[in-house]
Formats: sequence, C-alpha cells, structure tokens
Amino acid sequence: MSRRIVIIGCGVSGTTAAFQARKTDRTAQIVLLGEEELPEYSRCGLPYAFSHVVPSLEALIGYDEAFYEQMNRIDLRLGWKATRINTEKRTVEAFRTKDDLSETFEYDTLILAMGARPSTIPVPGSDLKGAFTIRTMNDIERLTNDLAENDAKRVAIIGAGLTGSEMAEALLQRGMAVLEAEIVPEILPVILDPDMASIVRTRAEEHGVEYHLNSTLEEILGRNGRVSGIRISGEEYPVDAVVVAVRVKPNTELVKEAGIVLGESGGIKTDERMKTSAANAYAAGDCVETYDRITRRHVLFQLATTAVRQSLVAGINAAGGDAKYPGSTGVTTVKLFGLEVSSFGPTTALWEKLGIHPVSVRVTGSTRLPYYPGGKDLTVKLLADLKDGRLLGAQLVGEEGATLRANLASMAGHLALTVKEFEQIETCYSPPLAPVWDPVTIAAQALLRKLQTYQAAKSPLLTRVEK
Amino acid sequence: MSRRIVIIGCGVSGTTAAFQARKTDRTAQIVLLGEEELPEYSRCGLPYAFSHVVPSLEALIGYDEAFYEQMNRIDLRLGWKATRINTEKRTVEAFRTKDDLSETFEYDTLILAMGARPSTIPVPGSDLKGAFTIRTMNDIERLTNDLAENDAKRVAIIGAGLTGSEMAEALLQRGMAVLEAEIVPEILPVILDPDMASIVRTRAEEHGVEYHLNSTLEEILGRNGRVSGIRISGEEYPVDAVVVAVRVKPNTELVKEAGIVLGESGGIKTDERMKTSAANAYAAGDCVETYDRITRRHVLFQLATTAVRQSLVAGINAAGGDAKYPGSTGVTTVKLFGLEVSSFGPTTALWEKLGIHPVSVRVTGSTRLPYYPGGKDLTVKLLADLKDGRLLGAQLVGEEGATLRANLASMAGHLALTVKEFEQIETCYSPPLAPVWDPVTIAAQALLRKLQTYQAAKSPLLTRVEK
Repeated sequence: MSRRIVIIGCGVSGTTAAFQARKTDRTAQIVLLGEEELPEYSRCGLPYAFSHVVPSLEALIGYDEAFYEQMNRIDLRLGWKATRINTEKRTVEAFRTKDDLSETFEYDTLILAMGARPSTIPVPGSDLKGAFTIRTMNDIERLTNDLAENDAKRVAIIGAGLTGSEMAEALLQRGMAVLEAEIVPEILPVILDPDMASIVRTRAEEHGVEYHLNSTLEEILGRNGRVSGIRISGEEYPVDAVVVAVRVKPNTELVKEAGIVLGESGGIKTDERMKTSAANAYAAGDCVETYDRITRRHVLFQLATTAVRQSLVAGINAAGGDAKYPGSTGVTTVKLFGLEVSSFGPTTALWEKLGIHPVSVRVTGSTRLPYYPGGKDLTVKLLADLKDGRLLGAQLVGEEGATLRANLASMAGHLALTVKEFEQIETCYSPPLAPVWDPVTIAAQALLRKLQTYQAAKSPLLTRVEK
Repeated sequence: MSRRIVIIGCGVSGTTAAFQARKTDRTAQIVLLGEEELPEYSRCGLPYAFSHVVPSLEALIGYDEAFYEQMNRIDLRLGWKATRINTEKRTVEAFRTKDDLSETFEYDTLILAMGARPSTIPVPGSDLKGAFTIRTMNDIERLTNDLAENDAKRVAIIGAGLTGSEMAEALLQRGMAVLEAEIVPEILPVILDPDMASIVRTRAEEHGVEYHLNSTLEEILGRNGRVSGIRISGEEYPVDAVVVAVRVKPNTELVKEAGIVLGESGGIKTDERMKTSAANAYAAGDCVETYDRITRRHVLFQLATTAVRQSLVAGINAAGGDAKYPGSTGVTTVKLFGLEVSSFGPTTALWEKLGIHPVSVRVTGSTRLPYYPGGKDLTVKLLADLKDGRLLGAQLVGEEGATLRANLASMAGHLALTVKEFEQIETCYSPPLAPVWDPVTIAAQALLRKLQTYQAAKSPLLTRVEK
C-alpha cells in the first residue's frame, strides 16, 4: 500500500513539503490541508501588493490548483481546518468551514506546517472596526477596502519591526499619513542595534513616518464602533485605522492538545531531521523552533528562508528519505525607503541578555571607489566574541549591496569563523561594481584590530567573559 | 638607527606597502621609487577615464605628493627607475630619467613591487604609429590624442580578455567602431567557460563589437608609417588604430639579475610572509606569483585585490611586523555592456589541462521572485570535483548581483567547502531584494544532485579521477 502523508497547513512550508514529498515518493498519497480558501501565496509579498508595486494580490499565488492535483497528484483541500491530531491512531480530523463537512484522515507520516498568526494586543478597542492585523491575503483585502470606504487619511501602525515598517512605507505610497508606535526606544529592535536602526528611522522620517518610540499602546479609541484614534503612553492621537504588527506566534494549540512537545521558545521542538516528539510526525516553518547556529539555542526565526529549507527536509523524511536541516543564522533583509537593511545574529542588547558582551565596530564605506560615479554609502556593524574572536553578527544599512554582503557575513557565522578568518576572505573588485576593499572587509579589519587591542590590554571585558 | 626600507615600484602595491610600513614602524626611513612621473593611480580605472565615465585621468590619482611626504614621511621619488639590486650589499641603484641623475639607496629591507607590463606581439608593423598597448595613464593619454588627431573611426583590439573587453566598450562609448580579435574560440577565456562567455559576447555584439575568434594577428598593416589595417588569420581589415591587450607579464628582469628566485609561473617566488629568496627582501603585486587556494598551485593572478593584500603583508613584515598572506581564489569581476561578469577558479578547460575533470551545472535564475518587478536573469555555472565534492569554481553572468554572489561562492572555495556544505548556506530573502532560493543555491542544489547521481552510478569519470 502506498504511503499516506498528511500535511497540515498549505502556506509555503506545507506546500514545499508536499512537492518535495512527491519528488521523494512517486506513489505516496499526499493530502494537503489548508485553512484558507487559496493555494499557497507569498506572504512576504503582501505589503507590495497592497502598495501596488506588485500589480495584484493574485500575482502572489505560486501555483494554481491544477498544478497540485493534476501535475503532482497532491490532494489539496482548501478551506479545511484541522481540528484534532491523534498521534496514537495516526489520524487528523478536519472540517470544511463552508459546509461543516468533517473528515478523518489517516496518515503514515504527518507534517505539521500550521505556521503562525499575528499577536494581538489586549487593550480596549481591539475589536473596533478599522483595527487590523496583517497576515493573510484576506487581511490585506479587508484593509484595502476598509481604508477606501472610510476615506482613511491617517493610519497608526503598532510595532516598528519588519512587517510594521514595510506596511508604513506601503501606506505612505498609497497616500496616507502614518504614525508608528514602538514599545522599545528604537525601530527594528530584533535585527539592528539602535545606532544602525537610527539610520533607517531618519530616512523613514524624511519620507514622512511619524514615530512614537518608547510608546505603549493603551487603548484603541472609537466612535460609532469604528477606530477614531489611539492612546499611546498617555497621549491620544486621531487616526482612521490601526494596524497591529507585533510578533507572530506559532500555531501550536493542536499539537499541544496532541501531546507533541514544544520547546522553550514556544515553537514545536524537532530534531535535525525535523522530526517531532510524536512517531512519524515532522514539522517545519513558522510553527517550529529553529536551531540558531550563532547563539546555539533554539529560537523562533519564522523566516521564509528557514521555512523552505525545513520543509524540504520534512518532506523528504516524511516520504521515506533521509535529510537533515543544519540550523540557521537567521540572516534577514528588508528594503525600507530605498535602504537595504540586512543582518544576521542577535543585536548587542540580546547578546548581553545572553551573558555575552560582544565587541563591535561600525564603519561606513562605499560600494565603489571614490572616483567612480554612483557609489553608495554602506554602513556595516560587526559583532565579535572577545574570548574566541568568533563573528557574532553583522548589521548592514545602505542604498545597495547590503543584502548580498549580509549573506557573506552570515556564511562566516554559519561556519563559526573568527573575525580573523573572515577578514582573509578576498572579495572581487572592478570600478563599476565594487571597491578594492569591501566595506565588510574594512569593518572586519577594524574589528580585528579592536579585538587584538582588547586582548593585548587584558580587557576587564575579557576577564568577565572568561569567568 | 632607524630602519631603511626601499620600495621599488609606486603602483598600488608599492604605495600600499609604503603606507603599511609607515603604520608598522613610525620611525623607519621609507624610500618609494616610481618610474612614472605620477603618484599611484587606479590602473583599473583607465578604461573608464578613457570613456569619460570617470571625468578625468587625474581623478584616478589616489593621493597627492604631500600626503606621501608631509603626512606619512615617505620619500617619494617619481621618475626614478631602479637599475640594479645588490642583495649582498643591500643596495638599489636608480637613476632619474629626466636629468640622468644616479643614486644608490641602501636598505635594511626591500620591497619589490615592480608590477607588470603589457605583452607585445612580435608581428610586422608593431612599431607603427597608431599601435598601442594600454597600461599607464600616459598610454591612455597618447591613445586618446592619437585617435582624435587622426580622426579614428575604427579601432582593432587584439585580445578579448578583461582589458580588451573593457576597452572595446570604452571605444564604442567614444563613438568608434570596434573590431576585436581573439586567438582562442571564445572571449574571456581566462575567467569563463565558452557557454558562459557566449552570453557576454552576444550582448557585446548587440552593442556593435565585431568579433573575430580563432584569429591570430599576423601583421599590423601600415601606410606612411601609420596603422592602416590588420591581417588576422589571412584576412585583412582596415582600421585606424590597434590596441594590443593580451596578458601582462611580470617585471622581473632586475630581480633575475640580482639572483632572486622566480617561480615556475615566471613571477617572483615568495613565502606566506611575502619574503623572496633574498635576505630581507619582500615582494607583492603583479610581479609575484600567488598561491591559488583552488588549484593549490602558484600562479600569476595579477589582480588589484591580491596586490593590496600582499602589499599589506609585505609592508608589515618589511617594517618588522609579522603577517601572512593566505593565498587567493582569484575571484574576479568585470562589467561589460550592462552585464556583471564574475568568477573564481579555473575554467573547465584549464582544470582538464591540470588533469581534473570537473562536474558542472549551469542554471539561470532570477534576482527576484517572478511576481516582483525588476528581477534580472542571473546565469550561474558551478564546477565541482567528483572525487571529493569540493567546489572548484563559479562563473556568473547577469545584469545585477553577479559580483557579490561570486564573493559568496569564492568564500566557499577559499575554505575548500564541498558543494554539499555550500548548499547549506542560507541566504536572505525579501521580495524587493532577493529570491527565497538564491540562483547560486539553486545551482549548488543542481550540482549536488548531479554529483550524487554520478557517484551512485560509479561514473567512469569518477574512476578516471580516482586513478
């Protein structure tokens, strides 16, 4: 009898796992359960479809249903919500919302790819019309219609992380004023140190974003059942709509009920083969915790890039193959107001919470030699461990070239290179394309000198670290 | 008494070594002998100053003389030609061309940075007016004036390597027709396999370059002492000027006379500290041979990027410090007709000459996901050793993103990673900046599958390699 593979979740993880399982086992029966009525689409593309940089929401859809069913013999069940996992009987119960149809799917192997959902903030007014979170295509459609119908002029975004920042730019591009509130003292706190983030914030302010930092959302104010303003840290501001864009949290209710083990991070715990604590059950994507090769802890990265790699591994293993996922550096990039903003590794503040006091440098170089027209400033911050000289992180901000240079630094992180080893990596040069000394190399050289100076001086920082 | 450092050659190597020696030893006496009348300038920038993309030749000069003399106390001797090195007495004899002044410089340590010069082709007519090689700022000035004075309409370039190709584009930009002759069957033979080079050639042809491949220069034809045409492989073509742009060769006459050891490549042999066979004599740049980390041989890379790193090491060591140069992957990039063309490692043909038969794949990906506007095709060829799976080279051609991705692949080469290890390196993604699966990763995945298939099939190639 052919292998029965059931996959819960048809976002990028579930879909990638399904296709990979099909490649691995040509005869398996593959059921792909998706709660939304749409096949997989690019969530990361939503802000760009909202802003009309991408011409339509439909353009974000990866493949039509025929590609799943006819081309790959995947039983794609859209609009089906999984309601129970029984790891003893190896069954998944699900029902179809539109007609309350229920079905129990038996599996030989299971892939958990339920993804994550946006956090809400439990303040008065959260349920008013005009208060949104952004996760699905449906969310974007509702937001778009709501803003148009109510002739919205000014929108508040709660949270100045990646999604909040992308949405701020998109709203400005749609002609609205944007007020963005962030609970901590600087924007993009997960990927940048404050000195780096301030470069991005300054640029965003020039484009019109009104930031309120150190600001806690206390209430969403309403009039006639609709958002009319917000109160943040005691001050009231009139706005026509609110988008709450704070951290997403893994969808783990079902797996918890099924007794599948979660990690300390709150995501599903897996081994290197993406296997969970349950027999024959694998997991991938935003619902799992990921081995962070830099901190050597298990964390919630919730990146598309980790999701697709984990799903390949889960798909192969669920179909009888053997693959391993080696963990990630969490390398991330985002484009904001003409700046590429890229990083890997924890911020200095997060390292300090972990008991490590990184040594860092920040340098601004150019993407060309001075004589060649068109070079752009690129600011690079590198972090290292004073004890062993290991590169602990990189943060880059500039109008071009940050993304691909972050990959270079991240590769050093992945391989646990020291700054000294990383500094020795030659980069190529040609006047129209890159400078003789890359800004990343210049930063590595500066950091190496600083490390050597601290080590020579037997810095108290070193002593503290060595304890 | 303070250390006396004499440096022969004031190109980028000599100059970098001088500044680095100064940083390392604040009290050393540093003499920097340069044959040209100009302080260091960017040779790589010459085609761009010729085409007027860079506004003037003067813009290519790094620092004015005061920066050497007043700021860094470097005794800069421009227009001084070294004529003899005596490694026993530790002296360098030199004379100043403009007034035949001679001087003997005593050294405690010596740095050889004499660079290289263009090869000429010993055919009839080489000495005609209107026949040029391109190496110095003076060469470019003479060429520019000659073309203007003779109202040149059509120029032949002999050699379709990096310099020849850059000059072809520059001449077209200056409104001239360009005929380019290459002795081998495809352009850019040192950095690209023919299948990759043909992408660049097609683009160049669209811009108007008239290529003659498999074509040997037999004669430069003249009329009244001036170039009137060329004969290549039996055919005559009328042209108004000829630029010979074939490989440069290291300037090693002086060191040979001094008994300093050259390597098999013809460049000066050094150890990791850039020390030559002579006591207290270091060397760097285009006149030395470089340890190629990919082929594990000593070769003539003659790149600015290797030159500056070698010079730092030579400068430090000549000034009493201790530094090592780890060798290079030879990673190279060039922009031609809107294409970034980047590579590291030998071509397939060169590997085969070395007795290794690389397995390779070529894939064309995009620099964005399909739905996001503005993505560009990027063609990536990766080479691997079937025996141990090591990445042996990468060649990339596309309108954007080839250069920095070549650095990523080259880093894998530098570290001797296998394709499997390289494939595991996560790259970052965001719709406006990079796709979820980078074209380089897609190529690595394809190459890994191919390697595994060959290995499983016990390919005859594998047997042959293992002999």
